[in-house]
Order: sequence, then C-alpha cells, then structure tokens
Amino acid sequence: MNSTCLQKTTRILNKNVFKCFLNSHIRNQSSATNQSLILTDVNDKTGFATVAFNRPPMSNFTLELLQDFSKSLDEVESKNYKGMILTSTSPTVFSAGLDLKELLNPEPARLKALRTAYIDCCIKLYSSMYPTVAAINGHAIGGGCFIAMACEYRIMLPNSKIGLNETQLGIAIPEVAVHATRNIISSRDAEMALTLGSVFTTDEALKIGLIDEVAENKEDALAKSEKFLSLFKKIPKRARGITKQFFRKKVIDLMTNNREKDVEAFVSYVMNPASQKSFQAFLDEAKNKK
Amino acid sequence: MNSTCLQKTTRILNKNVFKCFLNSHIRNQSSATNQSLILTDVNDKTGFATVAFNRPPMSNFTLELLQDFSKSLDEVESKNYKGMILTSTSPTVFSAGLDLKELLNPEPARLKALRTAYIDCCIKLYSSMYPTVAAINGHAIGGGCFIAMACEYRIMLPNSKIGLNETQLGIAIPEVAVHATRNIISSRDAEMALTLGSVFTTDEALKIGLIDEVAENKEDALAKSEKFLSLFKKIPKRARGITKQFFRKKVIDLMTNNREKDVEAFVSYVMNPASQKSFQAFLDEAKNKK
Amino acid sequence: MNSTCLQKTTRILNKNVFKCFLNSHIRNQSSATNQSLILTDVNDKTGFATVAFNRPPMSNFTLELLQDFSKSLDEVESKNYKGMILTSTSPTVFSAGLDLKELLNPEPARLKALRTAYIDCCIKLYSSMYPTVAAINGHAIGGGCFIAMACEYRIMLPNSKIGLNETQLGIAIPEVAVHATRNIISSRDAEMALTLGSVFTTDEALKIGLIDEVAENKEDALAKSEKFLSLFKKIPKRARGITKQFFRKKVIDLMTNNREKDVEAFVSYVMNPASQKSFQAFLDEAKNKK
Repeated sequence: MNSTCLQKTTRILNKNVFKCFLNSHIRNQSSATNQSLILTDVNDKTGFATVAFNRPPMSNFTLELLQDFSKSLDEVESKNYKGMILTSTSPTVFSAGLDLKELLNPEPARLKALRTAYIDCCIKLYSSMYPTVAAINGHAIGGGCFIAMACEYRIMLPNSKIGLNETQLGIAIPEVAVHATRNIISSRDAEMALTLGSVFTTDEALKIGLIDEVAENKEDALAKSEKFLSLFKKIPKRARGITKQFFRKKVIDLMTNNREKDVEAFVSYVMNPASQKSFQAFLDEAKNKK
Repeated sequence: MNSTCLQKTTRILNKNVFKCFLNSHIRNQSSATNQSLILTDVNDKTGFATVAFNRPPMSNFTLELLQDFSKSLDEVESKNYKGMILTSTSPTVFSAGLDLKELLNPEPARLKALRTAYIDCCIKLYSSMYPTVAAINGHAIGGGCFIAMACEYRIMLPNSKIGLNETQLGIAIPEVAVHATRNIISSRDAEMALTLGSVFTTDEALKIGLIDEVAENKEDALAKSEKFLSLFKKIPKRARGITKQFFRKKVIDLMTNNREKDVEAFVSYVMNPASQKSFQAFLDEAKNKK
Repeated sequence: MNSTCLQKTTRILNKNVFKCFLNSHIRNQSSATNQSLILTDVNDKTGFATVAFNRPPMSNFTLELLQDFSKSLDEVESKNYKGMILTSTSPTVFSAGLDLKELLNPEPARLKALRTAYIDCCIKLYSSMYPTVAAINGHAIGGGCFIAMACEYRIMLPNSKIGLNETQLGIAIPEVAVHATRNIISSRDAEMALTLGSVFTTDEALKIGLIDEVAENKEDALAKSEKFLSLFKKIPKRARGITKQFFRKKVIDLMTNNREKDVEAFVSYVMNPASQKSFQAFLDEAKNKK
C-alpha cells in the first residue's frame, strides 16, 4: 500500500462508514425487543451450524446480543456441530462492532459486563475446536471486523468495507488485536492498517489477504462457506483443533490471561472525558458529512 | 489459497500420498539391514558435505536412521565443513517422515528413543552454524517435510509433493512446527496448511514460498544447492551462525526447553488407543483407494 | 529471492558499498567540526519537523552525532510536532551507519557511550508517539538502514543501496534487529537477507517491501513524505501512538530491557581481536576492489 492508496481508503471511509456509524447511533432498532438477537440454523445433512447476528440494519453489538452470542458458541461446541458459518440477517452489514450507544455516557457496571461478554465471545470463537468461517454479507467494522478475523476463513460480498477503525475513534488497538491481525495479513500491512484505522473495500481486503474469497451474493457466500468447512470432513477433529490452538496460542493466552486487566482498562478508557469527546467528535464529523 | 485450490490439493493427497504411506508400510525395505542408513560425501574442493538418507524407496525414519543422522550432523559441525546439502538416495522420495511401522503397536521405550533422536536431529539441523540446503529429490511428507524446512533453502524436483500432513493422521502439529512454518511461509497460508494437513505439489509449494527453487532433476538440484551454499563463502561463519540462531530463537528454545515434555506427550499420544485407531484408519483408507 | 538474484545483490555490494565504507574511513569529514551534526527544520504550516543527518558525504554515526540526534528526537516529542521526516544533507547517502573509525582500535569508554547513544536513539525513534517517515536520499547501510527501518514509512531515491550488511563485517545481527526486520518484510526474505548481510538496490528493496515508495529525487521524496504524514492528520494522537507501540512491543521491550547487556556484549565483541581482524579484512578487500 502506498500513501495514495491509503488516502483513497481514508476518503472512502469518510464518505461511507461514518454514515454507517451515525445511522447506527440515531435509528431505533426495531428488532432488538421481540426477536432473538442471534439466530442459529443447523443443516442436518452437513452438521454445519449457521449463526447469524439478528439486529438489522447495523448488526452491532449490545450487551444482550453478546451474551446470546456467547451461548450460541457454547451450543455449537457442546452439540458437536461439524463447523460454524457466521453471518448476519442485515442486507448490507455483517457487523458494525460495538454499538456506540453502549459507549456514550455509559453506566460503568453495564460497560464492564459488555466488555466481559465481548472478550468471552472472542476467546470462544478464536479458540474453537470446530472449524469456523465468516460469510461477510456486508460491512464489517471495528469489533465486527475482529469477529470476522477470529474465524478461520473469510468470504465477503462485493462493494463492502472491512477494517479495525478503532484509532479513528481515539481507541487504541489492543495488543491482542495486533497479533490477531498479524496472524492474517503481512506485518507491513498490519502496522499501517492499525495505526491508520484503515477500512478496506472488498477488493482491497482481498488483495492484502484480510479476506480469502469474494462471493457474488449472500447465497453464494453461504455455499462457498459450506465448501470451506467440507475440507475438514476427514480431518480428525481433536488433532485439527489442537493445531489451530497452537497456531493461535499467543492471542488466546493474551485474551485469557489479561481478561480482567483488559476489562478494567477498557472501562477506564471509555469513561475518560477525552474519550467521550473523541466519540462525540467522530459522530459530529459524520453528521456534517451527511 | 482459496477453497477450490485446497480441495484439489486434498484430492491429490488422497490419490497419491496415501499410497505413498501405504507402500512404506507394506514393503520390505531391503536397504535397511546391510548398508549405512546415512551416506555422507564431502567435496574437497568446496568443503560442502552432501548427506543422504539411504533407505529407499521411502527414505522414512526409523530409530536407527535418526541415530545415524544425528551423528552425521555432529560430524559436519566438528569437521568444520563449509555447508551441508541434505538429500536422499531414493529415486522419488526425499523422505516420507517417521516410518508408520514405528508408530503402530509400538514398544514404549523404543518409541521414546525414536522421538528423542528425532528432536535431537531437529535441534542440531535447525540451529547449525554451517549453512544448510535441502535438495528435495522427491516427496517430502510429515517429518520429511519438517527436516527440509529446518534447512535454510529448499530446491525441489517437479511433480513431487511436500507438506506437514500430521493432522490427517490425527496427530496435532506441535507448537514448534507452527513457528517453524511461520518462519518460511505467510501466517495465513500456515494456519490453513497446518489445520488441513495440506500436501502441496512442487508448483504450489513454490508459489506459497515453502520451497525456494525448482530444479530439473537431481543433478540440477545438487548444482543449485552448491550455488546457494557458495553465497556464504565470504561471510564470517560465527556472525552468520549467531544471526541465524537469533532468527530461529523461538523454535530452538521451544525444542530445547520442551524436549522431555514433548517426548512424553508424543509417547502418550501415539500409545493412546484412539490414535492407534486413527493411524489404522489412515492406512485402511489408503488401501481402499489402491 | 532465488540464489541468482542473491548472488547479483552480493556482487553489487562488492563493487559499490565496500567503496562506500572505505571512503567513509579514509576521507576527512570537514563538516564534523564547525557545524551542527543534526539539522532540524519545522514547517509551521503542517507542524512536521524535518531532521537531517548533517555529516556529508557518508552521514555516518559518531558519538557526537548520535548524542545530538537523541536530543532532536526529544525535541520533536516535547514540542509536540505533528510528525517527523528523517533524511540527510549528503547528496548520495542517507546514512552509512556507524562510522567504522569508531570501531577500529577503539577506546572502551567511548565505544560504550557510542553504543548507549545509538540504542537510545533507536528506542526513541522506534517507539515515538508522533508519526515518522524516512526520506532515504541515497544509500542506507548497516545502522543507517536500521534507523530507516525504525521509521513507519520509507521513501527512497533510485539507484541507491539499502541493507543490514553486518554479517559481512563479522558482526552478528542482534536479536532486536531480527524482529524489527520481520516487522517489515517477510520472514523468508528476512532470514536470507540477514544471514547474507544483503544490500539491496532501490528496486529490489521495493519488491521485498523493505521500502514503500520510490521518489524521483529528494524534493519528490520530501513531498511524498509529507503526504504520508498527512494521512494521520485526523487520527487521535494517543490512540495511534499506543497502537504503534503495541505493534512494536517485542522490539521495544528487547531494546529497553537488554540495553546494558547489549552495550556490554557490543563492546566486548568489537574489542575482540578476531572482530578487529574482520573489520580490517573488510576494509582491505574494499581497498583491493578500488
């Protein structure tokens, strides 16, 4: 990536993704009250579970969604499903990450529970013994990008955006996310992307290896996801899972051992007036661009 | 690598390499009794030693071969040879790794000695002060691939297969092999290859960087190997060797510090009835495919 | 990189860069006495500081230059400049690294101070909260290459050479430089480059990712540098800086924690008669080639 390309990426971000976040912040999300926040569907023929974030339009994470997601991940493990496809029910967004409403003027206990639930989900997903694939059916930003990165394979729709944009909001990328990023893309691209908070188009993400394949549409993404999971049909599960965990050991260890410290640091960082001001500035800029 | 390419790779594996292992298991290997299991040949002009596994057709590792290989590695170091080319005398196989006969219904003391000898060879080869190159004159599977990966440069013949296929046999890739793989190919390719137990064709291996060059035939591979070793002619040996060891520190430390624990875990894993069943299933599947 | 390419690289090195070092050794450097060894220029409009090594023709490091450089790095941090462009006033050399005169028959106390100052500069530059870019206006060899690598982006002029050539002089690459190299280029290229002490042309460096862009001339390099720094205009400084430090944590920790041990080892290594002989041989070979 040269600086021209990066500048373009940043421009795209300004035009599209800020809006994305803004929408997330100002809309009422009708789905949050009466329906399950996570939908799980199992294909009895293949044994693959499809788990979907069900909080359109932004598929962003609230405390309740994360707690349900955590239970779903347990279920896939305990019911011994052969693999998991992760996607969302939104037509255009895989997940916009943490709901900014959870971060603006938060209640400390809820904020703490939110971060704890998020880390639990990350640990379970990142170290699962069963194979995982993200069918990225739209934008995947911030925590939404990280959750996709925690899977073993990424298939994305065209004309979408993906990236860990935390630094743009004034949130430092945690050490654990640095290592998770380096498990996927080159070190060189990782440092640039993380310090800039870069958000990539589908094509750019494919080029740097942040995603593995592009699908024509959601149906195609799900078909390609099944195809990926099928590769492991004859691989003994335990040997495969342990190998995966060895590969991901540094990130798993960091997440597990620093859990409480991370929660504390996150709460303190988000509660900090300067951070609150950064979040507000981010939203204001988005509003002006609109 | 996308999933189509991986599926193809797996198919190739099913057709060819299972046979390879099967052959290794059912043939009598005439060379094992009367001849040296390791042949060392020194070029007095260049000071380069060529060390060859002499156990055709599979060049796979028994306790005796590994003990002899360990002595050869000591000799190259103590006699101060300028570099080492590693190859085999088989027409089609560099090495198929550990002889499966050593793993099926094993005697614990011998199994322990086997693993100890294997790790000794890996440590010596991986951390050698002299430069090393693998002239991969055919298939390099499992431990055979790892030994090639422990060298500093890999030159391979066309139409051969190379890969760490352990997960296919139900053996988890040890943490040390994960890091050794990441010292050569990209993190992304490494996770996929190791969890799948992928075996690559020469062309695929060149593409992902698992090998460095393709040679037309064995003679060409040996010539190219000498050319590589000659690059270090004017580089002071001690500075070069220490630099290499710094680069490989994590793997060397893990191998050295976890040696006893690794041997114990390996013995316990191989003796486990479930593992024995996995090995048998692997062989049975190969027989059926034949 | 295959061996043919490496051989070419080494040949280029023999022809050009040995001369470079030799010149550095035999010329009187008129600039060293009366002028500042470091020139700092701040653009009030952008808030970017341009810091230049002012010791033509070789821009190589003496104790005094390093002490001044360390102060300049403090100044950029304390005066809260928005970013730093690192370059030199020499028409053809960014920096040839440590002045070999400091290493030949050295006085131990001065050698110790030299290494201490060098590590201080490396730590400050490598972990700076402000963004950094190297406008590599000519050759960048040894420590000169490392200093360029410590920046976040590298823009280089055509027809120049860059590389950590330490092993060629009989100096092992420190562990910290191994990790810094792997933060930029692929592991595969890193091991080869470091064990060989490879020095790359501008085009080769671009290809392996050791530099990010090529500029037509120094003016263009400075313009491109400003463009890179401008990418961070809207990124909150603290979040960006912490993210960078997490990315570089291993190197920063190693440099910080091993500082005294490193200085001691360096002094002992350089004072060693065998090392002195290696340095002399390197210079003699360069003289013969001239």
